Amino acid sequence: MFTIALPKGALLRDSISTFKRAGLDFSNALDENNRSLTFESNCKRAKALLVRNGDVPVYVSYGQADLGIVGYDVLRESELKVAKLLDLGFGGCHMSLAVKKNSNYSKPTDLPANCKVASKFIKTARSYFEELNIPVEIVHLTGSVELGPITGMAEAIVDLVATGKTLKENGLIKIDDLFYSTARLIGNPLSMRLDDNHLRDTILSIESTNSLIEE
Amino acid sequence: MFTIALPKGALLRDSISTFKRAGLDFSNALDENNRSLTFESNCKRAKALLVRNGDVPVYVSYGQADLGIVGYDVLRESELKVAKLLDLGFGGCHMSLAVKKNSNYSKPTDLPANCKVASKFIKTARSYFEELNIPVEIVHLTGSVELGPITGMAEAIVDLVATGKTLKENGLIKIDDLFYSTARLIGNPLSMRLDDNHLRDTILSIESTNSLIEE
Repeated sequence: MFTIALPKGALLRDSISTFKRAGLDFSNALDENNRSLTFESNCKRAKALLVRNGDVPVYVSYGQADLGIVGYDVLRESELKVAKLLDLGFGGCHMSLAVKKNSNYSKPTDLPANCKVASKFIKTARSYFEELNIPVEIVHLTGSVELGPITGMAEAIVDLVATGKTLKENGLIKIDDLFYSTARLIGNPLSMRLDDNHLRDTILSIESTNSLIEE
Repeated sequence: MFTIALPKGALLRDSISTFKRAGLDFSNALDENNRSLTFESNCKRAKALLVRNGDVPVYVSYGQADLGIVGYDVLRESELKVAKLLDLGFGGCHMSLAVKKNSNYSKPTDLPANCKVASKFIKTARSYFEELNIPVEIVHLTGSVELGPITGMAEAIVDLVATGKTLKENGLIKIDDLFYSTARLIGNPLSMRLDDNHLRDTILSIESTNSLIEE
């Protein structure tokens, strides 16, 4: 039996569909009345751990999960060692730089030197500004990053933008995209090496059914 | 007008009661249908920012909020500079060390050297083990820390324990308490210095009504 780390939240439903197409059914993890954090697939071939999006790379890296699904945004921010297996295509959103609509900033280089930028993704934000050679102070917030510019704490934010509704509601506009993030299948490197084909078959099965969907 | 950072979640209701006793009514922040993140008090003397528990010290430290309420657990983990004003007494819970019930560990020094300890509070956990002179590897999880020992990733966890129900449900027991955490009133140091008595009056009012409750 192998173990899969599934992300709670926005990516869960599509993650479960992905494994279902590969013959592993964890639909009971979608039952909101079920407080359990571990689920066996109906076929008993695999077990799922239901964890926070940000914890998926931890369980996969330490080998408590052989496979996992996680957003590229989280994967990029994490510095843990995992095998990057497949781009699953779903959960698409941009990592963007946004400012107040009524500010005079229309591109990143318009931002004043040493201004503050609020983000949940501090490593991502820091490396973006380092590449642009713009010195800024990154302020780490864990939620409602849009409050940064509203309260005057930060001139800009680096955050995930899916529909743009939250930005609009808070009087912010996007002035740059850092990258496009989608859900990724990752694996524990040692599990992949020691695999007796169970992982390989699952990955191949996900790959073939996934490309069928895209066509 | 001055600004107060209120913590979303478990401490919100008592935080609002605290300021209400001091004459500042932010009850509309309890309306779950209200998506707003900023609220004026009915008397228009103050404004509240509704933010994640962990972000309260950030807003207070950077001066976007003059006062804030936050759990001591979060305050201790944060390294930002804020004035520690009052222990409000509510939201009490222990920061505890817990292990699997069927393990042989009954005190911290029983833990094997270089074992893994999972926690959301990595600085707190690290300094605790350093003081005990026990070398451990701290694994940072952001949610459901109890999965650490269940999956075999970690021998122990350092986490907040209120009723002990979650530990019990997951077959874990507490073997040490690091400290007792309660809600604290904090302030921006510069705001306190520049205060024209509005902050001072509010703090004194909270202090007097708070000690009445405790009697």
